[in-house]
Amino acid sequence: MWVRELAVSAPGKVILHGEHAVVLGKVALAVALDLRTFLRLRPGAEGRLSVCLPGVGVRRSWDTPRLRALRGRIAADFDESKSPSAEQLDALREFAGIAAGASAPESLATLAFLYMCLAISAKYGDVPSVDIVVWSELPTGAGLGSSAAYAVCLAAALLMVCGAISCPLQEGESTARWTEEELTLINSWAFRGEQVIHGNPSGVDNAVGTWGGALRYQAGKITPLKRVPTLRILLTNTKVPRSTKVLVAGVKEKILKFPAIMNPVLDSIDAISQECQSVLEAMPANPSPEHYPVLEEFFDINQHHLNVLGVGHPSLDRLCQVTALHSLHSKLTGAGGGGCGITLLPPDTSPLAVEAAKQDLCACGFECWETKIGAPGVTLHCCSSLSARVLHELAQS
Amino acid sequence: MWVRELAVSAPGKVILHGEHAVVLGKVALAVALDLRTFLRLRPGAEGRLSVCLPGVGVRRSWDTPRLRALRGRIAADFDESKSPSAEQLDALREFAGIAAGASAPESLATLAFLYMCLAISAKYGDVPSVDIVVWSELPTGAGLGSSAAYAVCLAAALLMVCGAISCPLQEGESTARWTEEELTLINSWAFRGEQVIHGNPSGVDNAVGTWGGALRYQAGKITPLKRVPTLRILLTNTKVPRSTKVLVAGVKEKILKFPAIMNPVLDSIDAISQECQSVLEAMPANPSPEHYPVLEEFFDINQHHLNVLGVGHPSLDRLCQVTALHSLHSKLTGAGGGGCGITLLPPDTSPLAVEAAKQDLCACGFECWETKIGAPGVTLHCCSSLSARVLHELAQS
Repeated sequence: MWVRELAVSAPGKVILHGEHAVVLGKVALAVALDLRTFLRLRPGAEGRLSVCLPGVGVRRSWDTPRLRALRGRIAADFDESKSPSAEQLDALREFAGIAAGASAPESLATLAFLYMCLAISAKYGDVPSVDIVVWSELPTGAGLGSSAAYAVCLAAALLMVCGAISCPLQEGESTARWTEEELTLINSWAFRGEQVIHGNPSGVDNAVGTWGGALRYQAGKITPLKRVPTLRILLTNTKVPRSTKVLVAGVKEKILKFPAIMNPVLDSIDAISQECQSVLEAMPANPSPEHYPVLEEFFDINQHHLNVLGVGHPSLDRLCQVTALHSLHSKLTGAGGGGCGITLLPPDTSPLAVEAAKQDLCACGFECWETKIGAPGVTLHCCSSLSARVLHELAQS
Repeated sequence: MWVRELAVSAPGKVILHGEHAVVLGKVALAVALDLRTFLRLRPGAEGRLSVCLPGVGVRRSWDTPRLRALRGRIAADFDESKSPSAEQLDALREFAGIAAGASAPESLATLAFLYMCLAISAKYGDVPSVDIVVWSELPTGAGLGSSAAYAVCLAAALLMVCGAISCPLQEGESTARWTEEELTLINSWAFRGEQVIHGNPSGVDNAVGTWGGALRYQAGKITPLKRVPTLRILLTNTKVPRSTKVLVAGVKEKILKFPAIMNPVLDSIDAISQECQSVLEAMPANPSPEHYPVLEEFFDINQHHLNVLGVGHPSLDRLCQVTALHSLHSKLTGAGGGGCGITLLPPDTSPLAVEAAKQDLCACGFECWETKIGAPGVTLHCCSSLSARVLHELAQS
């Protein structure tokens, strides 16, 4: 029986370069965003499993014998090497009273929780009597990998409770991480959770949430970068809603219409991702300020290219203009057509300039976070080491 | 002896697509701009050759016997197949009292006038006793081919006066053009005039001034397009001064720094020029409005690419934004870094929108002309058919 109170956190992600081009076989760089999802794990009442997700208004609790019985009916195929089956998900929906086809965040989050609990416990141990609260600094639905960060936290916590991975936090330590082998297992199960939520995820988001730092993604192959620096950024949400599906289709259409004009643009984006990877990998060994103007130039060029692909938006032009007034360089990140942009903050940026830029961006109606990319992946925390803000949010349940 | 009073006009030019990329071997499209240079030719006092260029403050007159004597000393090599020699230009400068190395427009215009008079008359006839006034709608030094339009007008007028080409204007006609063969001769001599003014011109500007319409330029090869439409545009001069040499060097440096990122951008620009050529050649046979959105898309994409090459400027961003507010699409033309931009005016553009866009551009401190591209090349006019404005300017002398 689980007896410790602990917390697990996992970072969100942003695409640094290669969004859209990656769909067409080019390289993308995804980086861990230091806006994190936090999971608090503590022993529950004997025979009860509880989950509370204050951000999406979920507060559920089940008798573990009932869960065990359900698991018995559908557990035959539970394995991290297998995708959730339609039958399993139907049975879980019925059990939790979730309508078929329900796609609201609270429904999907509950479904993923149940799937992961039953699947992981079926393979590694008993349905645990624990009390789980998850809260995130990440906005949902903004392309920042919030569902993956959730799935990574759940996978780590449940695997640890079931004994499939160790509890690496020694007495007196504030944080600890798992071994590579354990991280691989966490990532596999997080991917299954992402499948419950997204159907057909690329696996990039859960990989970033698990390993942190930065990774290269091309044609389905995910390769974590060896060593990457932590870079300060502003992350700005224009709050302009968009459909990734429509944007991706628009890019494809433009390429079909003008292949000779558009294909070289994809090649140039591919080269930006690769050059940027080289710069990032060179920075830890040689943390000279000369790297930053190059990273800024890549932002500017790629932002123009993304406009050429047709995924810009007046709100993103505005974001770039506003930050340019403070000598800062920005690009959209993710699907574009609104959504989020990132602004690099080189080390010599004055705090006054950052503050002024943030104020100007907020004055446009945008939401703005001063944060970092290249953040650590899934991490185990002693609860007392968490910030007062996070503790407060997790205690709301 | 020349007895008729006639006028000759030639258009300016703008680069539609391919500026900068053309320096690196890619295709450029140059088009004739319907801002024209006008030359009035009339019989002069016997034994006097006069030239008046009110735009640059030149009013000179010489005895033809003195010119004949000068010609005798330096004429041995005068031919349209040969570049002006340093010795010839030195002798002309000395004769006209122009300091060695003087590069002011009035000095270069006078020098080109004298060179072309003596060279053409040496090959085809006597030094003529005529009175020449040249005035232009084109601003000088804005990359709009004003010196070439001047040289084309001079070549046509002097070749006609010397009998090397016909006077194709029939009694009662208001305008006439020369045969292909005659145009080729005009173009050759205009190129020599351009050499006097620019040293090492590409030959594109005088070719556009001679043939009008549009032409394709690649690796030194100039090919006039078969049939091209006349397109309405706004031509806007940001009046931001720039150095073409510095801008060209900046592009080369960027390509050397990031070849894998920049070379595809040049390929994309090349493809835009070629696709645009296809659209322009398809338009006369099928003048459907569906071509315009494609031309506008090419403007937008190339404007982004030119920014990627580093030849944009905040004034040009402003120009594009201001016209975008009126649903019009713009790009820089020529060297960039300031200078001029062009805005396409599709046939369905409301006169009110055009007027509003012009006003907004003027409010930015820009100079703005509503004009056309694809204009006719060098043309002979009966003076009475010229507009009152042009007649007035030519009569100022």
